[in-house]
Amino acid sequence: MNNNLIVAQSGGPTAAINSSLAGVINQAVKISDIDRVYGSVHGIQGVIKDQFIEFTDWKSEDITKLSKTPAMYLGSCRFKLPEISEDEELYKSIFDRFNAMKVGFFVYIGGNDSMDTVVKLSEYARLHNHPVKIAGVPKTIDNDLIITDHTPGFGSAAKYVASTIREIAYDTYIYDTQSVTIVEVMGRDAGWLTAASGLSRTKSSPAPHLIYLPEVAFSKENFIEDVKKNLERYKNIVVAVSEGIHDKSGSYVSADTTYADKFGHSQLSGAGKVLEHLVKDKLGVKVRSIELNVLQRCAGHIISKTDFDEAFAQGEYAVTQAVEGATGFMSAIRRLSDMPYTTELFTVDVNDVANKAKPVPESFINEFGNNITKSATDYLTPLIQGEVPADYDGGVVDYLPVSHLVHHKVQ
Amino acid sequence: MNNNLIVAQSGGPTAAINSSLAGVINQAVKISDIDRVYGSVHGIQGVIKDQFIEFTDWKSEDITKLSKTPAMYLGSCRFKLPEISEDEELYKSIFDRFNAMKVGFFVYIGGNDSMDTVVKLSEYARLHNHPVKIAGVPKTIDNDLIITDHTPGFGSAAKYVASTIREIAYDTYIYDTQSVTIVEVMGRDAGWLTAASGLSRTKSSPAPHLIYLPEVAFSKENFIEDVKKNLERYKNIVVAVSEGIHDKSGSYVSADTTYADKFGHSQLSGAGKVLEHLVKDKLGVKVRSIELNVLQRCAGHIISKTDFDEAFAQGEYAVTQAVEGATGFMSAIRRLSDMPYTTELFTVDVNDVANKAKPVPESFINEFGNNITKSATDYLTPLIQGEVPADYDGGVVDYLPVSHLVHHKVQ
Repeated sequence: MNNNLIVAQSGGPTAAINSSLAGVINQAVKISDIDRVYGSVHGIQGVIKDQFIEFTDWKSEDITKLSKTPAMYLGSCRFKLPEISEDEELYKSIFDRFNAMKVGFFVYIGGNDSMDTVVKLSEYARLHNHPVKIAGVPKTIDNDLIITDHTPGFGSAAKYVASTIREIAYDTYIYDTQSVTIVEVMGRDAGWLTAASGLSRTKSSPAPHLIYLPEVAFSKENFIEDVKKNLERYKNIVVAVSEGIHDKSGSYVSADTTYADKFGHSQLSGAGKVLEHLVKDKLGVKVRSIELNVLQRCAGHIISKTDFDEAFAQGEYAVTQAVEGATGFMSAIRRLSDMPYTTELFTVDVNDVANKAKPVPESFINEFGNNITKSATDYLTPLIQGEVPADYDGGVVDYLPVSHLVHHKVQ
Repeated sequence: MNNNLIVAQSGGPTAAINSSLAGVINQAVKISDIDRVYGSVHGIQGVIKDQFIEFTDWKSEDITKLSKTPAMYLGSCRFKLPEISEDEELYKSIFDRFNAMKVGFFVYIGGNDSMDTVVKLSEYARLHNHPVKIAGVPKTIDNDLIITDHTPGFGSAAKYVASTIREIAYDTYIYDTQSVTIVEVMGRDAGWLTAASGLSRTKSSPAPHLIYLPEVAFSKENFIEDVKKNLERYKNIVVAVSEGIHDKSGSYVSADTTYADKFGHSQLSGAGKVLEHLVKDKLGVKVRSIELNVLQRCAGHIISKTDFDEAFAQGEYAVTQAVEGATGFMSAIRRLSDMPYTTELFTVDVNDVANKAKPVPESFINEFGNNITKSATDYLTPLIQGEVPADYDGGVVDYLPVSHLVHHKVQ
């Protein structure tokens, strides 16, 4: 009987994805139906290339350390499986490996692209009556998976964005001259993370004064008017924009400016940089743009405890469900109430979620398209609650070593 | 008798400057020789424009909250006092205000430009036999003040840089393809903060693989060779560069690329962006650049306890010295040993430090000019030790309100 488990990760890094991995391992080593627990390195590619790490004998302190480590312990891949009909051999090799390793459970932690892998593997298993159970655990800082209330990784990214924009605001307030600061937040097609910037505000700190999401057609004229109006009242304005804002014809703001360097490269600059130039040009006020860097997805030193716990729980839950016979599913979370915040886990058919995206709803955006509403705040607030103190060693944040990724040869 | 105290802040924000302010207030309200404690808003400009906050009756919990708040509670200014001979009236108005407010002590917290204000005010006081004691307390993330071993604010910025570069490294390691990530760190003329990136390294995490400081003439040819060599060994390379790197003729790398947007602006891009293009052009490998944003100077959520405590102590010490009769001085710190790390405070004649800068010494840089040495690590390590847990409210880092800066009208 195949009673081993393989877990893998895929897509972009988050601060909570290793908490889901830790949840999977923790539950798998606990359940008597599961024997050995393997991690496939670089997503499904590890299965194809026979690259595994074994977790079966990990100590609980290692699992805890793993849960608090950001990015992706097992490494990622951007590899999308072909259609089954296009390369049946590849699928056969994957399932041969499952048999050789006596694998009865395969858990894939990733975003909507990764759920496509869960769809295809479970379809192949169904077609060939293979007993392996295929489970998906969601993760994405973009929070754009449908059906589930939200996705692990988002709450921590949202907490990072809200906290750092408050700090950026404090940095802007100190000068006695007017200024505009434009902060560009990740989220090409969905504005969830940019919306979370609204949680920065306090009674005395109004930043960000304006918020623009890709769900609303962006108008440069309206933007300049919005900034002007705010400058009449406030000395220093902070504006949060999604990287993916675009006008009503669908043209990205970021596509509006190109620069050519001395090598002749013509490059897109970010939306923030374009708006920086626009403000300088139209209003002549001191302006700068800040692109929040990859820390918004991998800052393990500022994690939402709610997110962290939910990520872990979803990993555990997926294993439990698979052992009970479920397959071709993704674990999901249902919100029962905002305050007190209560939720329950459930499973969804992965076919219903893969390759689909959930935008920020209209009710979360104000009528002028330049701010979020109370509904948005009510939805977002519970997701960033609680802290998970980071470990420090020698004064620097300390994570589980990932030497298998550092020296791993390029394929 | 003039026994009130004014304290003010000037220059760029740091995560520890309000700890120095809290130290000044804490000591001033404790000492019986001092009656009332005022803060001048926007540096020396507050004295000129009569804008003050009174701290005399602040509760100790407010002072604690203040100490943990980043940026600059009293607001900053970039105003440099003219020579006394150029505008004697201005100086007279400042000292008239001192008299009107019965001010016997003036403490200025700032960098080397701000120490110029301490020089000029103490010179005027000396010329006119005015009894006010003028004290300076250093701060700068650049760590470029001479005589003092290091400056408050630097340790916290260094801790932020080291920790976040470790997180950025974890973010890069996950992919199975080669990549180069260039991280641009603040420090136009001095590479102290970029040098601190070396503290990111662990036995298993070699990032940053290369470090370039403005103290070494930058050669693009050598840089490309360095990157190539590292790519033979490692899958993902992280490079830390100071914003101010320049070639042997003094031309800034950042001046090498200009881009023109559709408004016809021609803008300098950063050193990181220039090197990104260079790597893409010469090596054809996947490359990105990250400009660490203002958080490296104002991330109150990741503070060095050593820095925080020293900043506070220097504020207290400056008040004590002024009350004992010292004037025209800056508080400074002398290192007695690296391990165990022991220090003592002392005063320096502010004339000896104002408008001067301290580069990273040669002994801290390796022979190839692309890394730091053990001497550098030994010097830097003690400065980032210990953590100061941030306060969170509703899931977001929580600081003392600064409404007096937010709504304050532009002059």
